[in-house]
Amino acid sequence: MEIRQVVGSLVCTHRVAGLGHWDLRLLQDTKGKHYVATDPVDARPGDWVFVVSGSAARYAMGDAGILTDLTIGGIIDRWEEERAAAVEPTAFGAARAA
Amino acid sequence: MEIRQVVGSLVCTHRVAGLGHWDLRLLQDTKGKHYVATDPVDARPGDWVFVVSGSAARYAMGDAGILTDLTIGGIIDRWEEERAAAVEPTAFGAARAA
Amino acid sequence: MEIRQVVGSLVCTHRVAGLGHWDLRLLQDTKGKHYVATDPVDARPGDWVFVVSGSAARYAMGDAGILTDLTIGGIIDRWEEERAAAVEPTAFGAARAA
Amino acid sequence: MEIRQVVGSLVCTHRVAGLGHWDLRLLQDTKGKHYVATDPVDARPGDWVFVVSGSAARYAMGDAGILTDLTIGGIIDRWEEERAAAVEPTAFGAARAA
Amino acid sequence: MEIRQVVGSLVCTHRVAGLGHWDLRLLQDTKGKHYVATDPVDARPGDWVFVVSGSAARYAMGDAGILTDLTIGGIIDRWEEERAAAVEPTAFGAARAA
Repeated sequence: MEIRQVVGSLVCTHRVAGLGHWDLRLLQDTKGKHYVATDPVDARPGDWVFVVSGSAARYAMGDAGILTDLTIGGIIDRWEEERAAAVEPTAFGAARAA
Repeated sequence: MEIRQVVGSLVCTHRVAGLGHWDLRLLQDTKGKHYVATDPVDARPGDWVFVVSGSAARYAMGDAGILTDLTIGGIIDRWEEERAAAVEPTAFGAARAA
Repeated sequence: MEIRQVVGSLVCTHRVAGLGHWDLRLLQDTKGKHYVATDPVDARPGDWVFVVSGSAARYAMGDAGILTDLTIGGIIDRWEEERAAAVEPTAFGAARAA
Repeated sequence: MEIRQVVGSLVCTHRVAGLGHWDLRLLQDTKGKHYVATDPVDARPGDWVFVVSGSAARYAMGDAGILTDLTIGGIIDRWEEERAAAVEPTAFGAARAA
Repeated sequence: MEIRQVVGSLVCTHRVAGLGHWDLRLLQDTKGKHYVATDPVDARPGDWVFVVSGSAARYAMGDAGILTDLTIGGIIDRWEEERAAAVEPTAFGAARAA
């Protein structure tokens, strides 16, 4: 899964029937690229979330008939802190002994 | 899902039977890269749309036998305005408290 | 789907049984990166084509047992002209009114 | 599959039901980009791992109902040594004779 | 499918059951990025190969229960020669007449 920030919602009157009236969240990655995702966890602008793609995205909506390829899987509680606390990759050098 | 702009249509006389006579829209991303998508919502050149990929793309055509991997999922009503109104990512800093 | 140019064919004596004796076309994108695709439409070097990926690639071969993840979906009749005629993205500014 | 380093875990109170209470590992690639993966092999921060994506990611959790698109497939025993010992690509020039 | 060079093998004692004791080949693309693939054609370091991804990767192992998302599909007989002989893309300009 990948990490995005919710930056808004999209209004799309003309859409395929398979998306019903589901909210379409506008997300952004750290390089400013935009994505569109369905949202079963009621995320709000500013929330950092992780997204699920592929066939799992449809199941994550609770109904495989919902025609999305990207769904918000959850809201990260304290992303700024967890990002800062993330292990400094080089600190570990070689992986653990077998 | 990702966001593209419709920039034309493609004429492809030699094509696999699984695509029938469906229109093939020519799309472009913000870096100028081209994509080809099937179009169940009758989008027109200039429209900003979001696209659905993978197996969901086939279902979005209403017939999983249509052999596409990218389908226009909907037309964004006012993309320029919504892009401008999108939350400034850094404005929120830490995600909401749990 | 994405757009590629056919630049040759590949000889692969050691291959998985699931690819039988199908021709393997060598394709190239506009950045010079190479791809390998199965070809049910008899494309020739120099042809501009669009490719279908994922599970649709297997179905596009007419037999889901053919173990490809990329299949030529069709030959674009006049790509140079269609690329030139493609709408200048900024020309349209805001999307159409709802 | 691709290679990542485990750099921590994520706390996500609001998540889709399909992820249950599974630990969510925070991974990083060699360019510093972050990913989120489910972990059936109990990897620890600092471990170099390979990840499985797509539908195989769900099966790798032992239960296709677990809604992930990225799962840790295994821990690489001595990645630093194996990376250093990897064949210098140009050393071989042409592939072996048929 | 994409083209890679085999540069070694990986030792992974801790791995998901769905990968059994299959060899895990270490591959590299032309930009030096590493990948991990299962290998049903017994490729050796230095071989140029093409890889199959997605659900086709599992079928290419002859057993869809083998939890890989990348499998070596075949060994390219003379990649250096075929790459050199590949059509110079611009040589053809417009695609053939319909």
